[in-house]
Amino acid sequence: MAFSEFRPLEENSLIEYIKATPSLSSKIGDNYDGLKIKEVGDGNLNFVYIVVAPSGSFVIKQALPYIRCIGESWPMTRERAYFEATALKAHGGLCPQHVPEVYHFDRTMSLIGMRYLEPPHIILRKGLIAGIEYPLLAEHMSDYMAKTLYYTSLLFRSTTEHKREVAEFCGNVELCRLTEQVVFSDPYKISEYNLWTSPYLDRDAEAVRGDNVLKIEVAELKSKFCERAQALIHGDLHTGSVMATCDSTQVIDPEFAFYGPMGFDIGAFIGNLILAFFAQDGHADQGNDRKIYKEWLLKTIEDTWNLFHQKFTALWDENKNGFGEAYLPAIYNNPELQKLVQEKYMKELFHDTLGFGAAKMIRRIVGVAHVEDFESIKEAGIRADCERQALELAKTLLKKRREFVSISEVTAAMKQV
Amino acid sequence: MAFSEFRPLEENSLIEYIKATPSLSSKIGDNYDGLKIKEVGDGNLNFVYIVVAPSGSFVIKQALPYIRCIGESWPMTRERAYFEATALKAHGGLCPQHVPEVYHFDRTMSLIGMRYLEPPHIILRKGLIAGIEYPLLAEHMSDYMAKTLYYTSLLFRSTTEHKREVAEFCGNVELCRLTEQVVFSDPYKISEYNLWTSPYLDRDAEAVRGDNVLKIEVAELKSKFCERAQALIHGDLHTGSVMATCDSTQVIDPEFAFYGPMGFDIGAFIGNLILAFFAQDGHADQGNDRKIYKEWLLKTIEDTWNLFHQKFTALWDENKNGFGEAYLPAIYNNPELQKLVQEKYMKELFHDTLGFGAAKMIRRIVGVAHVEDFESIKEAGIRADCERQALELAKTLLKKRREFVSISEVTAAMKQV
Repeated sequence: MAFSEFRPLEENSLIEYIKATPSLSSKIGDNYDGLKIKEVGDGNLNFVYIVVAPSGSFVIKQALPYIRCIGESWPMTRERAYFEATALKAHGGLCPQHVPEVYHFDRTMSLIGMRYLEPPHIILRKGLIAGIEYPLLAEHMSDYMAKTLYYTSLLFRSTTEHKREVAEFCGNVELCRLTEQVVFSDPYKISEYNLWTSPYLDRDAEAVRGDNVLKIEVAELKSKFCERAQALIHGDLHTGSVMATCDSTQVIDPEFAFYGPMGFDIGAFIGNLILAFFAQDGHADQGNDRKIYKEWLLKTIEDTWNLFHQKFTALWDENKNGFGEAYLPAIYNNPELQKLVQEKYMKELFHDTLGFGAAKMIRRIVGVAHVEDFESIKEAGIRADCERQALELAKTLLKKRREFVSISEVTAAMKQV
Repeated sequence: MAFSEFRPLEENSLIEYIKATPSLSSKIGDNYDGLKIKEVGDGNLNFVYIVVAPSGSFVIKQALPYIRCIGESWPMTRERAYFEATALKAHGGLCPQHVPEVYHFDRTMSLIGMRYLEPPHIILRKGLIAGIEYPLLAEHMSDYMAKTLYYTSLLFRSTTEHKREVAEFCGNVELCRLTEQVVFSDPYKISEYNLWTSPYLDRDAEAVRGDNVLKIEVAELKSKFCERAQALIHGDLHTGSVMATCDSTQVIDPEFAFYGPMGFDIGAFIGNLILAFFAQDGHADQGNDRKIYKEWLLKTIEDTWNLFHQKFTALWDENKNGFGEAYLPAIYNNPELQKLVQEKYMKELFHDTLGFGAAKMIRRIVGVAHVEDFESIKEAGIRADCERQALELAKTLLKKRREFVSISEVTAAMKQV
């Protein structure tokens, strides 16, 4: 059976497809008795099938030529599946512990076959809403970010490799444009797509659109996003792109991947932890005031940055005599200078992280795609209070990010809101 | 006659080539009586033939697979001719007054046929050494830079066009690497290629290699050069890449073109004017103390930046409701915000310009490729004095560029050296 051109699969044609594809059929031992297929795509963009058989399992993800949550009216290239598969393989090669293995990719069909992240893996965001502590989350995510970002940057690579990869991922421009619109543009103007908890946040949304300083700062971040090819970033590293258990953390869905600023990834993750923090009051009830959980979130935010800093600079130190072309050993390899250079680099990265993180928070409150952390708070007035706190902190972070010296100053500001 | 594969041309085969190429032979009316061919490549990289016939003329530039001035031991891709032709056509379309027309390009042969810039056009650098005033130079160069940089940036373009072009010019990586080496690396370390006026500048060269602050700043600039795709820059815009008469200014040789930081072009041009300034004392003689000429150079440096600033922001204002995606009109189109945004953008561009300009000056004094401005000063002691002044200013500009608010502060610092 040949699939020489694209067609969306449903359950029956999927089975035919699997039978015709050795890299998939071998995963279930070519045994179709007791095969179960479940469509679970709860994301915004794609169809996702879980395929489980007695002898094995995998997930099939197929991109359709539009954005699923909005429908065929918002077209979106299927080529995003190619960039997702390419990024999964690249990041998986650098950090296999935290990236699901890709078993199969079919560019014509925009289809990825990959490891099924079996229960009790759940989407991290849902775990954070449920108040589940993940003791290894900061350790794992800092590991993932340090490795994927360091090894794809000019700290480790030659400019020859770098420009070849940058050119390749320039092809993912449609997904970049979607980010530009929903993160850096729409929240700062009148847009049919914008949503907020109305009428409670009407004035807050209006204030965002009228805040000149905020708009100047967001323009600087947008220009970094569009122009600065610093590393192969995931491009959408919020808490919905992570599946976790108490001892496993897996990063999925890098279809927005391209060579962009590292701070966009780190900021996305930390920014979404901050959103989770501010949503906790909306999830508190008589049985659980969430105070201890909020402390855990604060600690996880601090640990994430601090461990990332530690691991990233450790990779840099380990490889300082390698082939990376940003800081040639013949020029920079004296301990004092190495230290100064790292401090400057990490300081800029920290401020980028806060800026991008804040921009990602703002768009989740007054832009098109909201987060379940807040959306699951039924009472609109309470939800709006939570959102307003997050929004205020985000505005401060975005505008005054260069005044923050350490992540503990950020968590202190969170507690003061 | 077919040239199905690359071969270096010499005079006889060049005539055969012209005869077989209508876009060239038509330029001289297919008339080979009285045809004169002269090889004039005095640059570092290529062979250049002037072809003049009674009825017309053109220039043939052919890239060879190595760097001409060093020889076959330093290989260099012939594909640079493709990027040169592509950039000439792109920039020529945006600013035809100051870019020679391309008549013909042959990728297989790495060969460009283009307008012959007839006498009295000379290389600007030679004119500056001779003490010739070019009353329109600042006007013309600011025009060229404003148009080529503005129209190829995200201020004018969509990100779709931008990423497509960025990807294309990523292919010019070998030339980018050459710049990285000779501008941002070699001067700051021991390198077999480095040269300086020895023994006079031995300590100065050593001081550059031992200056931690300088090395940190140059790393920041290198990272911008490697990572920031701001506009289609010429990539080698020194005074040897400009041919001029009193009323014509033509920019040639963009084989280093790629999407990089705008300040690299503006800085290259202004930095080389500053080198010309500091060389003047070495060219002074009893008949001409060069004092008036130095004043003209100072004024030209100021005018170049100020006119560039004026023209660039005027283009921005004219097109502020266009398709450029950096600052969407729905967000930024109120006069106060527009002004703030431009001030911030131009301030950063000014500091980039000073930084890159300084880096380009330093490498011309302690790096591999020197400039005729200094090399033509026969007396080594005098030459070293001139070079040291330029070097000291460059170090100040590189390290303290963020403290400079206007170009007149730069010229004031030049006078104080």
